[in-house]
Amino acid sequence: MRFTSLTSSDGVTEQLFTLGEIPGVLWTPEGARGPRSLVLLGHGGGQHKMTPGIVSRARRYAAEGFAVVAIDAPHHGERPKDEEFGRIAAEMRAGMAAGGNPGALVAGLHGYLAPRAVADWQEVLTAVQRLDQVGVGPVGYCGMSMGCGLGVPLIAAEPRIRAAVLGLLGVHGLAEDAARVTVPVQFLVQWDDRMVPRDQGLALFDALASAEKTLHANPGQHGGVPSFEVDSSLRFFARHLI
Amino acid sequence: MRFTSLTSSDGVTEQLFTLGEIPGVLWTPEGARGPRSLVLLGHGGGQHKMTPGIVSRARRYAAEGFAVVAIDAPHHGERPKDEEFGRIAAEMRAGMAAGGNPGALVAGLHGYLAPRAVADWQEVLTAVQRLDQVGVGPVGYCGMSMGCGLGVPLIAAEPRIRAAVLGLLGVHGLAEDAARVTVPVQFLVQWDDRMVPRDQGLALFDALASAEKTLHANPGQHGGVPSFEVDSSLRFFARHLI
Repeated sequence: MRFTSLTSSDGVTEQLFTLGEIPGVLWTPEGARGPRSLVLLGHGGGQHKMTPGIVSRARRYAAEGFAVVAIDAPHHGERPKDEEFGRIAAEMRAGMAAGGNPGALVAGLHGYLAPRAVADWQEVLTAVQRLDQVGVGPVGYCGMSMGCGLGVPLIAAEPRIRAAVLGLLGVHGLAEDAARVTVPVQFLVQWDDRMVPRDQGLALFDALASAEKTLHANPGQHGGVPSFEVDSSLRFFARHLI
Repeated sequence: MRFTSLTSSDGVTEQLFTLGEIPGVLWTPEGARGPRSLVLLGHGGGQHKMTPGIVSRARRYAAEGFAVVAIDAPHHGERPKDEEFGRIAAEMRAGMAAGGNPGALVAGLHGYLAPRAVADWQEVLTAVQRLDQVGVGPVGYCGMSMGCGLGVPLIAAEPRIRAAVLGLLGVHGLAEDAARVTVPVQFLVQWDDRMVPRDQGLALFDALASAEKTLHANPGQHGGVPSFEVDSSLRFFARHLI
């Protein structure tokens, strides 16, 4: 794990790093020492580890004492895009333009990325927990849309993750992994989401095997999650990780 | 308005009162003076103003600075039950035992109670806001199940109510009033509710005309709303009434 920059502002320290070929960011409270709860942030499709929504959420969590990590998903951000990914992404866009089923098209792309994404997160988690200011504390995952599509297989595979905030995605391609998710989940649905039909989002919430799961639905489109849901997710993680 | 008792404990003052034929309870922070936000609590069917769930919620809100009022709904608690109500309630129970549509049966009972309940709340609201320790501040309403069935027509009719926590009820008989509700609403659904089919609860949420409305769904039966939803409702009221 190689750190390439360190900046601090408003009580939060932000460190860019690379772990092998994975570029990432670690946020911690300024001057943090010793183990603490950690949240992994998975970004959406076409976004990256420093997308504004990721950065603002990370800083909000870190200001409350959490360590937070984001990495570029495979074929996103600073990472190289291979031909196969380019072909699948182009097919997805063409399929949507032609009126195809968005759930199936998106699931195809996520299915291509998931094995690499899961391995990346597991490697990053192990490396980050070796740092003094993170340590082996409770771990949560937060990801919407593609961050949910890659997060569900990760949580199904990774017992170190003890709570998750997910959503903005339908059940297509995820039913089996969702049935292996048993940790507490807060799940977001946008009630008027044209990319994810309401019943498909509700079906993914339904498919989660978690005994404690809580659905938050709000009016508006895919990108319009109200800002109070960031505070709500913070309280959810505080309830389950502290 | 006649106060019949006053007790204080843990920083909250509880006063029983009667207003005409309406028995009620007022909770305020101990020693409260001057205007403050007020929450009206509507209890569920067969319950009353001092049902444990009402008292604990009221004390929690009052401890945070709110004034809180609960009253016995018509034909509930200390109030007399007339023959017509007894007949409708017996018909509802018999219909349910015979496998009838619970939504329709419950809506029949609520429809009988609603005109009186709305008038009672309006009278109580006017009287309570004349008290020094309540005053004319922002007003919210919180009611689940029958408290929702009587609350939706109240909020549709009463412009002084500026935010509401509702839920645990389906759309049957309420679509027209719901379409007149425009204040922010937090709406609860129990995902495995045998009394209120999931799609009926979602349909009532959908029918609310509010630009800001947020749905919280949790696993479990009608009576099994998790305790963290009380905290969440408090933050919702704090967001909209303070």
